[in-house]
Amino acid sequence: MITEIAVVDIVVGQEKDFETSLGVAVSTVLPQAKGFLSFNLHRGIESPSTYTFLIEWNTLEDHTIGFRESDLFLQWRALIGKHFASPPRVEHWESIAF
Amino acid sequence: MITEIAVVDIVVGQEKDFETSLGVAVSTVLPQAKGFLSFNLHRGIESPSTYTFLIEWNTLEDHTIGFRESDLFLQWRALIGKHFASPPRVEHWESIAF
Repeated sequence: MITEIAVVDIVVGQEKDFETSLGVAVSTVLPQAKGFLSFNLHRGIESPSTYTFLIEWNTLEDHTIGFRESDLFLQWRALIGKHFASPPRVEHWESIAF
Repeated sequence: MITEIAVVDIVVGQEKDFETSLGVAVSTVLPQAKGFLSFNLHRGIESPSTYTFLIEWNTLEDHTIGFRESDLFLQWRALIGKHFASPPRVEHWESIAF
């Protein structure tokens, strides 16, 4: 299992519209993606137009190839991309348990 | 409840020592902090010397004042700060539920 952490700046004033569009995208697009496990959304306190997604995938390739190179990614971006102020900053992480 | 997300670059080659020190800090220091709820650690796949902490606190002030201005913070940094390659990048986030 890996975690995608994406930081996204939204056009100021479009935060609520973005959240609505994202709700549709998360409930309709992500569940169709192979290897998708969970989605969590955080909104910045210091930067309230910035959001962080934490998305868990079975494998790195489930995100970078299976999802990114599929029509589902086009649907995902069509729903939410119009609210982006700049390209998302995306990195992948492995969980470390103590 | 708020989430602190901290991104920390570790001196290359000190990753395992850092994880060991952090394990001690998380098990001995954080549980003493008022309002501390949970800690999760992620290691970068693209950047394996970079770690992300996700720390849940009851309130923003539990972290920024209660913890940061306490002796516990000095103990925390004494255990792990020696492995930092640069100052951590810390921001606070509220969870958005759909």
